[in-house]
Amino acid sequence: MGAYGEMIFTGDELLRGDALNTNQAFLGEKLLDLGVFANRALCITDDLQAIAGAIKESLEREPLVLILSGGLGPTDDDLTREAVAEGLDLPLEFHPELLEEIRHRFVSRGYVMGDSNRKQALLPHGATVIPISGTAPGFILHHGRTLVAALPGVPWELQEMWDATVEPSLRKHVDSLGVGGHVVRRIRTFGIGESAVADLLKEFDWRGSLVEIGTRAKLDGLWVILRATNSPESSAALESTQSRIVELLGERVLGVDCEGLPEMVGSLLRGAGLTLSVAESCTGGLLGKRVTEVPGSSDYFVGGVISYDNMAKTRILGVRDDLIAQQGAVSADVAEAMARGVASLLATDCALSVTGVAGPGGGTEEKPVGLVYIGCAIRGVVEVERLRLFGRREQIRERASLSALDLLRRKLARYRLEQGIVLGQ
Amino acid sequence: MGAYGEMIFTGDELLRGDALNTNQAFLGEKLLDLGVFANRALCITDDLQAIAGAIKESLEREPLVLILSGGLGPTDDDLTREAVAEGLDLPLEFHPELLEEIRHRFVSRGYVMGDSNRKQALLPHGATVIPISGTAPGFILHHGRTLVAALPGVPWELQEMWDATVEPSLRKHVDSLGVGGHVVRRIRTFGIGESAVADLLKEFDWRGSLVEIGTRAKLDGLWVILRATNSPESSAALESTQSRIVELLGERVLGVDCEGLPEMVGSLLRGAGLTLSVAESCTGGLLGKRVTEVPGSSDYFVGGVISYDNMAKTRILGVRDDLIAQQGAVSADVAEAMARGVASLLATDCALSVTGVAGPGGGTEEKPVGLVYIGCAIRGVVEVERLRLFGRREQIRERASLSALDLLRRKLARYRLEQGIVLGQ
Repeated sequence: MGAYGEMIFTGDELLRGDALNTNQAFLGEKLLDLGVFANRALCITDDLQAIAGAIKESLEREPLVLILSGGLGPTDDDLTREAVAEGLDLPLEFHPELLEEIRHRFVSRGYVMGDSNRKQALLPHGATVIPISGTAPGFILHHGRTLVAALPGVPWELQEMWDATVEPSLRKHVDSLGVGGHVVRRIRTFGIGESAVADLLKEFDWRGSLVEIGTRAKLDGLWVILRATNSPESSAALESTQSRIVELLGERVLGVDCEGLPEMVGSLLRGAGLTLSVAESCTGGLLGKRVTEVPGSSDYFVGGVISYDNMAKTRILGVRDDLIAQQGAVSADVAEAMARGVASLLATDCALSVTGVAGPGGGTEEKPVGLVYIGCAIRGVVEVERLRLFGRREQIRERASLSALDLLRRKLARYRLEQGIVLGQ
Repeated sequence: MGAYGEMIFTGDELLRGDALNTNQAFLGEKLLDLGVFANRALCITDDLQAIAGAIKESLEREPLVLILSGGLGPTDDDLTREAVAEGLDLPLEFHPELLEEIRHRFVSRGYVMGDSNRKQALLPHGATVIPISGTAPGFILHHGRTLVAALPGVPWELQEMWDATVEPSLRKHVDSLGVGGHVVRRIRTFGIGESAVADLLKEFDWRGSLVEIGTRAKLDGLWVILRATNSPESSAALESTQSRIVELLGERVLGVDCEGLPEMVGSLLRGAGLTLSVAESCTGGLLGKRVTEVPGSSDYFVGGVISYDNMAKTRILGVRDDLIAQQGAVSADVAEAMARGVASLLATDCALSVTGVAGPGGGTEEKPVGLVYIGCAIRGVVEVERLRLFGRREQIRERASLSALDLLRRKLARYRLEQGIVLGQ
């Protein structure tokens, strides 16, 4: 929709391969929420002239927003303040009240502030300080039609400052330029591919002008993204488009602007008052890890068994030896027996199981790499799905874990209907 | 050492937050291995003029190497071939033999090649094709003192082409410019911080001219990096520096230019003919996941128990109720009982256990968030370590899992000495 932004990252760890640039992914997505597409992101080494030059060049392209990340600390390598001052030809001004705030942060944690922190209280003329999340203050200033925001490189500090200060400022800025009033809806799906979604959504082609429909393949499923301006007609079109798409995609839809699979399954279990256990073979613990990455998952997750070797399947889960001998460890029957076994062992209402060939070795013609069975038990009723996954070992394991969570999500949604459970009460 | 490189990435998924730029991290590290520091990395949207302009500007800075990634597919958005031709003012030439190779790839997978693939057989004048890993051919060409390499965006295709073709070409290029003959050694450590390492390595300050010593904090430990030129004196200094550092850091050293913790623990177990099981509380399966991310881990890993709830600890692992009541679930005694319990349940030689407070909730003054006990049993001898970890939930869980693996590594190294086991036989 014609609104562009740029990002500049400093920090040699990003250029040396010591860290992944998660800030770029975070900001890219958040900017899109405001209708701003970041068409350039530059990582650059800690060199004052190079950074100042990059800032200058960016501003000549007049992006709607230029986000800087990193270089706000107290060391000699922290050059963002100076580079902005130089790039925009502004003097640096000392803010004694900001230094006091930084000192206060140190004292409250039992530390003494060093002399080097003094430079953190310098801001380019005209800049507004962003309240401190960690120890490095950020700042915002306006240059022509560009909002410039300087944020720390530490991801959680950057994210807190984005949410609290930059996002509202940028929203106002975007509105004031008349490019805003942009509404985004994310329909999250799982278990359906981009081309299948495209086929289902063919009927929408003619509506292009009021609601823009796009798809994005994320690590944990496909998102259908709807965008519209904020006018009454667009809003009405957005609502009807959203309802129709949700109807067309049916139970593949996780929800609109909703949380991820582990959180969603957690909410469903908590809402229905059900407990969960897992039995994992090829995922080796990854499914349990995904379930327990949600804070508070101990409310519904009791535990699990990593039955990697067949001995663990028979000894702990009570899977029958002859079943494994006849059907093989990678089979629907063993997936079912694993789910039943762990539910019974840990006395849980629900259980998930995974057994498959993650590769790269161990595949046969009959049971190739990527063949995975997932089982889901809810109060003694077990359903097993057969998956044929592609990719490398870690992709197959990730996909298998998410598929198991999704199977439980779909079964819990049906269970909830049958039991007449209303969530959120 | 004065040799600089640049990288340009295309692919809107990187700018929209749909994918993390793992290629940048991979290439940044690999370039450093050759003594080349990438001082700029640009992600740019799929716009022919913008990409061609960025290539031109990069070449004006005369980097030793310019790596391009992405934009080599058959669609209209795949613009790297055209952008290189335009940026370097070279004609595009059609290579019929390359088209045949691409066609052959399709046929051998049972597909028919479409007309759109024809453009993949176009290369800028003077370019050498990089043999195909997946379906997109890459290419290399020389421009002044810059080696330009165009690689696909798919990480495994990029990595295969790097290893097979780009790395050797770049090594030759670096040598021919007289900036090469560079030797790198990575001393991997775990469980020691950057400042503690700096203190231990103080004696080396005076050697700066022959061997450059640096440290890099990686996700899975600290690396001490040694760099030297390839002259006989430098090589001798490198060897003696390396030996001395390995001696100073003692058992914190994993090895030199070695594999990661999960692979290393796997090799030690396999070499000693020992089996492993795990019992996890706060890591919820992550430790098992790390162990089983190594292909072939079924040779030594039998399985595990995710004893998230105390009921799972008592019921499956046989941890005594009164122990939990007296000491709390997060305690050295419970960690020991968990390790003994799972070793006995699955009849393994070794067992690892983790119990702790991952947060954000659940911390108390006595047992704060980040308090973790890890237990390690080898043939009935159990050792427990108490960790005080910092960071957010996922960081604490990652760190706890790696710490458990490292405890086993250190114990296995001692066990191997005691038993007189020689690895690699």
